[in-house]
Amino acid sequence: MIRKLTILGPGLLGGSIGMAARQRKVAGKVVMWARRLEAADQAFTLGAADEAGNDLRQAVAEADLIVLATPIGAMQALAGQIAPLVSPACVVTDVGSVKYPIVTALSALFPKFVGSHPMAGSEQAGIEAARRDLFDNAACIVTPTAETDKAALQLVHDFWKQIGCQVRTLPPEQHDEIVARISHLPHVVAAAVVNVVCSDGAHPLNFVGPGFKDFSRIASGPPEMWTEICQQNRQEIGRALELLIEELGKLRTALTNNDGVELKTMLKRAKHYRDELRFRV
Amino acid sequence: MIRKLTILGPGLLGGSIGMAARQRKVAGKVVMWARRLEAADQAFTLGAADEAGNDLRQAVAEADLIVLATPIGAMQALAGQIAPLVSPACVVTDVGSVKYPIVTALSALFPKFVGSHPMAGSEQAGIEAARRDLFDNAACIVTPTAETDKAALQLVHDFWKQIGCQVRTLPPEQHDEIVARISHLPHVVAAAVVNVVCSDGAHPLNFVGPGFKDFSRIASGPPEMWTEICQQNRQEIGRALELLIEELGKLRTALTNNDGVELKTMLKRAKHYRDELRFRV
Repeated sequence: MIRKLTILGPGLLGGSIGMAARQRKVAGKVVMWARRLEAADQAFTLGAADEAGNDLRQAVAEADLIVLATPIGAMQALAGQIAPLVSPACVVTDVGSVKYPIVTALSALFPKFVGSHPMAGSEQAGIEAARRDLFDNAACIVTPTAETDKAALQLVHDFWKQIGCQVRTLPPEQHDEIVARISHLPHVVAAAVVNVVCSDGAHPLNFVGPGFKDFSRIASGPPEMWTEICQQNRQEIGRALELLIEELGKLRTALTNNDGVELKTMLKRAKHYRDELRFRV
Repeated sequence: MIRKLTILGPGLLGGSIGMAARQRKVAGKVVMWARRLEAADQAFTLGAADEAGNDLRQAVAEADLIVLATPIGAMQALAGQIAPLVSPACVVTDVGSVKYPIVTALSALFPKFVGSHPMAGSEQAGIEAARRDLFDNAACIVTPTAETDKAALQLVHDFWKQIGCQVRTLPPEQHDEIVARISHLPHVVAAAVVNVVCSDGAHPLNFVGPGFKDFSRIASGPPEMWTEICQQNRQEIGRALELLIEELGKLRTALTNNDGVELKTMLKRAKHYRDELRFRV
């Protein structure tokens, strides 16, 4: 039973976690901490917490579960700040999109740390966009290591499930490799395509249909947050990008050769896999 | 006034055109022609036509407007077949995704030909997916040349508008260049990313969120149709692909150098343009 849940950072994810946790009565009390008092007040007003403030010591004291929900660039410094204030019995998790560096650093600070990555809400930002149903059926990947405390893992697993997520488990390294392909690569590619489309100005946007809108939606995500994600996971994204450049080179050759057989093979293969998604979360 | 509207090809687009035209009373009579009688019967049963059959001569006789709605690979052969049967007063248009080759070939066959490209319904196919509201607020690009008959252009323009489209005008060459960037490039890129994601099997699809689903939806489009589109517009798609490979190369370098400034510049630029789409069709 989580008596006190503390969320650090009232952004889109932190705010939505607070709203969902309160609605679903996942914890006896939901506390929100924000660096700025106005942000804490706003989170409280929007129903994302039972208590909110900017006193870090007070926020983490006697918490059973702490969720670090700041941008990943700020996470390690904040973790260092709270480490001396947190009881060894407290379970700590985070919402970062890159796991290996965070899990490595934070496991050294908190005996009951479990890395998490709820996959929701990529192109919006800020508590204004927070919704208590943001996690309904969203995938959440938890990333234990061999050293992870089993009871803490169970608590974090159940927490995300109660919030509405479909929980999956992956080791941190594998998480970063897979997420580089399914999330970070599409993000930078959508951005690159938008830049190519608009390389002579925004005029072509007058002609786009729903396909382009859906394809490019993720390119509206917050650039600061995505820059941090790209930098933290640069090796795996780089590897995925190399595979993609290779694949696009083959496509370029098939077009030059007017090779309908090769083009159809590539498009069929992609359709085969993409169609599988109809039956998944 | 269109007394007789004839649609050749009861697929997703042809079927939806028939449904919309009947509902909005755009023509006195909507006639559907299909190569196979069963397909014509199905179109009639689904409400896509007042009359349907597989007799080409009967279908095009005394038509005021003929819409060629077959896949682009079959279009030129069909146009050649109907050319001797069509009255010189009849306006002819098409729905092909590539315009320069079609406009060039069909303008030589029909004195009142006007090229069209309604941008709707990319990932589905077949009359089963047809809807009478498919064109509501969809962009439709008409592609006149200096030689296009002005009255025919007006009729085709008004026709798409009455069907529900937001009509835009572009010369055929410029259409192919812009659509290569906003539609054909995203399509092949989404397919290539899916292939990279699944290069070791479909396992990573277990972890995708809504961002990847939206980004990759177009990769479910019919491979035969898209192979034809790619082949017909291979020069412009090739050019766009080269620009993209160059852009992705810069991104690769920025990742290797852990260059946050360059990454943020690229992501900001893309967000700036993508955010403009919120205010457009």
